[in-house]
Amino acid sequence: MAKGSRPRSKSAVVLLSGGMDSATAAAVAKHQGLDLHALTIDYGQRHAIEVRCARKLAKALGAASHRTVEVPLSGFRGSALTDASRRVPRGRSPKRMSQEIPSTYVPARNTVFLALGAALAEATGAGSVYIGANAIDYSGYPDCRPEFLRAFERALARGTKRGVEGDPIRIRAPLVRKTKAQIVRLALRHGVPLEHTWSCYLGGPVACGECDSCVLRLKGFREARVTDPVPYRARR
Amino acid sequence: MAKGSRPRSKSAVVLLSGGMDSATAAAVAKHQGLDLHALTIDYGQRHAIEVRCARKLAKALGAASHRTVEVPLSGFRGSALTDASRRVPRGRSPKRMSQEIPSTYVPARNTVFLALGAALAEATGAGSVYIGANAIDYSGYPDCRPEFLRAFERALARGTKRGVEGDPIRIRAPLVRKTKAQIVRLALRHGVPLEHTWSCYLGGPVACGECDSCVLRLKGFREARVTDPVPYRARR
Repeated sequence: MAKGSRPRSKSAVVLLSGGMDSATAAAVAKHQGLDLHALTIDYGQRHAIEVRCARKLAKALGAASHRTVEVPLSGFRGSALTDASRRVPRGRSPKRMSQEIPSTYVPARNTVFLALGAALAEATGAGSVYIGANAIDYSGYPDCRPEFLRAFERALARGTKRGVEGDPIRIRAPLVRKTKAQIVRLALRHGVPLEHTWSCYLGGPVACGECDSCVLRLKGFREARVTDPVPYRARR
Repeated sequence: MAKGSRPRSKSAVVLLSGGMDSATAAAVAKHQGLDLHALTIDYGQRHAIEVRCARKLAKALGAASHRTVEVPLSGFRGSALTDASRRVPRGRSPKRMSQEIPSTYVPARNTVFLALGAALAEATGAGSVYIGANAIDYSGYPDCRPEFLRAFERALARGTKRGVEGDPIRIRAPLVRKTKAQIVRLALRHGVPLEHTWSCYLGGPVACGECDSCVLRLKGFREARVTDPVPYRARR
């Protein structure tokens, strides 16, 4: 949609949660020659260790800037990921994950994240917002699916100055159709320090190995025949 | 789009900035019999007096709940509305406003607001998000136009649990095609305490009368043949 006469932006906003997927998406953007403006959103999640990992990752990836923004979604409740009184499901099979939206779904989370990413992209002149969303080996969250990401991009084209001026902000989800094993391999190829990524929905200090996020991550490493450098609780 | 078998929600989230338009949109929702969950977003705007007005308005409207959420968009810069070093334009004619996007445009502001509104709607079970957006007598912001609001609603239908389950969150902009004079009359009909609304882009203590927002507001009152109860600086 960008007009031919406009120079393509050399920078991108990357939504960097501290997890493996967002770190890998950021590494892809860097590999494409883009300067990275990393944006981490602290929304009151249980796994605040992710936010600390994001800081280390932004540094390791040589990000041009890194901001951590607090957005108190936890005050809205509605999710086991932000509400300590609700149980995080454990031991769900990947097949079951694909069939129902779990209690760890955070209402409109990626909508909020992408909106903030778009605001930063427009303020900094970045051409795109990279997100580590994945709709193959995933927890069944609707806001990780390509049809949502495309629809959000269309909304941005209509509702931002950049869109109206013919240089719309693009949403890039380079992992959206990859398996977790492919993501592990891509991360290693691009030198992502996987020991600094945190995926477990619980707060640590070691990963539980049983929440959806751990189940999917372990499956990915197993299928990629790679050892996960992150420590897990002794397996049952 | 809502399925016939699902009872219609009796509540709505209202984005309540403290300005006249959002207060009137909230009053319309109340008039439609909805319980109001008011959401005010403090994004570091110059006119923080708006946030105080929002508190009074939520009370006057009998809102079931009122939350003020801080989202530091001002840290992203990019707007005269959040950056004290940039000049707020004054004395622009309504015709000129319709022709260019001014420096008071805040990157992706309504995208961020609607995303947070949607998150709260999904967390509380509210059926819709009301916004006071207006595309007739307005500053030329692209995120106030119906084509954006529709596109955002479509994105929500694809990216939220509610959307996937066939009960999508609706975006309601009851003022979007009204003139400012019509909004003034509607506000009076619904008993909006206009003395507690604040529109001026500058911080007060009295309205400047010259910024886009004051120009449009004064035009509305003049055309509605009503006196604005808000104090203005002595006119030039």
